Amino acid sequence: MTVEHEARGKKAMNTKTHQPREDVAAAKKTLSLSLDDLPDFVRGAAFMGTGGGGDPYVGRLVLINEMVNGGKLDIISLDDLADDAFVMPVAMMGAPTVMTEKMPSVAAFEAALSAAEEYFGRRVTALIPLEVGGINSVMPLVLGARLGLPVVDADGMGRAFPEIQMVTFGVYGCNISPIFITNEKGDLVTVKALNNKDGEDLARSVVVRMGGAAHIVCYPMSGRDVKKTAIADTLTLALTIGRTIRLAREQSIDPVQSLFDHLANQPVPRPTRILFDGKIIDVRRETKGGFNIGRIIMEEIGQSGCRCEVEFQNENLIARRDGAVIAMVPDLITIIDRETAEPLTTESLKYGQRVKVIGLGVPDIMRSPEALATFGPGAFNLNEEYIPLELLA
Amino acid sequence: MTVEHEARGKKAMNTKTHQPREDVAAAKKTLSLSLDDLPDFVRGAAFMGTGGGGDPYVGRLVLINEMVNGGKLDIISLDDLADDAFVMPVAMMGAPTVMTEKMPSVAAFEAALSAAEEYFGRRVTALIPLEVGGINSVMPLVLGARLGLPVVDADGMGRAFPEIQMVTFGVYGCNISPIFITNEKGDLVTVKALNNKDGEDLARSVVVRMGGAAHIVCYPMSGRDVKKTAIADTLTLALTIGRTIRLAREQSIDPVQSLFDHLANQPVPRPTRILFDGKIIDVRRETKGGFNIGRIIMEEIGQSGCRCEVEFQNENLIARRDGAVIAMVPDLITIIDRETAEPLTTESLKYGQRVKVIGLGVPDIMRSPEALATFGPGAFNLNEEYIPLELLA
Repeated sequence: MTVEHEARGKKAMNTKTHQPREDVAAAKKTLSLSLDDLPDFVRGAAFMGTGGGGDPYVGRLVLINEMVNGGKLDIISLDDLADDAFVMPVAMMGAPTVMTEKMPSVAAFEAALSAAEEYFGRRVTALIPLEVGGINSVMPLVLGARLGLPVVDADGMGRAFPEIQMVTFGVYGCNISPIFITNEKGDLVTVKALNNKDGEDLARSVVVRMGGAAHIVCYPMSGRDVKKTAIADTLTLALTIGRTIRLAREQSIDPVQSLFDHLANQPVPRPTRILFDGKIIDVRRETKGGFNIGRIIMEEIGQSGCRCEVEFQNENLIARRDGAVIAMVPDLITIIDRETAEPLTTESLKYGQRVKVIGLGVPDIMRSPEALATFGPGAFNLNEEYIPLELLA
Repeated sequence: MTVEHEARGKKAMNTKTHQPREDVAAAKKTLSLSLDDLPDFVRGAAFMGTGGGGDPYVGRLVLINEMVNGGKLDIISLDDLADDAFVMPVAMMGAPTVMTEKMPSVAAFEAALSAAEEYFGRRVTALIPLEVGGINSVMPLVLGARLGLPVVDADGMGRAFPEIQMVTFGVYGCNISPIFITNEKGDLVTVKALNNKDGEDLARSVVVRMGGAAHIVCYPMSGRDVKKTAIADTLTLALTIGRTIRLAREQSIDPVQSLFDHLANQPVPRPTRILFDGKIIDVRRETKGGFNIGRIIMEEIGQSGCRCEVEFQNENLIARRDGAVIAMVPDLITIIDRETAEPLTTESLKYGQRVKVIGLGVPDIMRSPEALATFGPGAFNLNEEYIPLELLA
């Protein structure tokens, strides 16, 4: 299913210097991102990150730095990806709480990618985000700009999830291994796991030892594999979500309503709900085992006393209103600022913030039995059976 | 300093089937070990393991199994090792408490060794123990017998130490990386660390995730490297220590005195001391972070009330008599049964056991400033300055 076996045995080319690769950069661009678009893009990515995926501000800074230094973004659609392309996802793995203090290192990503290329004896011809989120939808763009590699407008989650086996790539048969893990010091660990969950477990232990966040390259895939397993157009969706929120603000109209209209107008309309409207009265959060784990409790504005509780493991997993489930993974649960609709990551939530909790249903590819086995409620040790958002709220 | 750079770039041969390799097995044998010798050998290895290195009974069972199935041992002296040999140490890494329940897997060692050979594009031509101890001096013999590979009569510690950077190979310039780590399920993790302590830390996190014990192959070396850095003749020493204890028992003479006579008659005589004679009144032990950590408190037989405390991290680290230090790493501190002189591993110690605590000084190669920086008291966060056993007791 992956390119691993095809690629093995061919010996490594020189992987030391990366020059823009005009041959692979000739594909049709489908998404243009300028410096001015970045705030919208990372805002939308943070919305889709459902509380996880890292601080969008950090992601933006790293990408701005790359672009002002001459890096050119080249984002291609899934349709334009060649079947025989050699694609690898790149991501930060670890607790988002750590990633705001221990910044992603482009050199460390380059080292991981070089190790992958040396292992397969083959140049990577395109990158893809593992997930959409504040940092992890940006890092492939940073690396792509640095190396002259196109980035596919798609990802493996259509959102952010806490664990790296929780991707459609794996659900539909691609192998997580080898996973190349690097830190900013120059250590490199390669994991070849018997199955994708073992890969997550072993890589997580290494990431924890590396300080709680590290750089990974995994799921080696052919273009054909990616087309069969990825969630399409999610970078475009992130940009347009972020843009819709900003335009509504500028026009003094309700950003949530604008956003819902936008999501209803997608080629495949996405169900949306306002799950709760209130203020945060308690946040419990700890960085444990390479995750940011906890729960947020909100109370409705006014005298109703109605409460909402959201549990998270990096990302928001389940929302309950007075004890009754109103949304759960894999559907998106995103907490936004009540006035500006700015999405809030779990590590930034504070007592007293006035927020809305937004629910967004996922595409069908993420609701199949195989998909739910990998990132449905049971995968997070939640006892609830999955019920789609639109049937719950 | 290591063979890594010479060997890189040559491509892997078929490493799937291992046949006895007559070409490398032609070297002069210096140590003959029969099935009848095994109890003596593992007893002596456990003595040198200073409480660690794993249960000698487990080690013996695995080796007996290999030998009755036709495995032939071929143990060569350091002098007979070719300069251009490609030597790798193999060892179990983790908590000895775990290794008595999670048995070493020969297949997992083979997988780690195959990964190393594929990485270097070169067959390993000899094995060497990383340390001397109940399990870890035996596993290279088991693997050597299985694969038809000679095992060098030497090791990197002249005893057992808890961490894999604590070897003379590293002290005198050899690189721990890459470390190939496998479990019995088929997972493989490769660590390429910036320095040897990073290698230990990253490998340890993987071993903990693998259940607290795993199989490693590391420190790729040339024969030349091994000759420059290894402690010579330690397998022979283990056999003769074990034999001396047994013969003394059979002749009803004091095994400790016999042992001390034997150690004084080595080519380089080794200082020895009876550090304490008493019974165990308390054992504190926990399996934590991939180690078996704790302390033993003993009281002198009779009415003196004099006490001895030994702290351990897998291996015994420091012995104090009524608070005064009487021996410390890297000198060997071994607890033996008071009557039979059978060496006791830290995981087998119990309340009420009557024991003697024996001190054995290490060779000069292990007392240099570089060596003490790597495995002296400071390396274990002990505040004491190293003072040789013979100047303390």
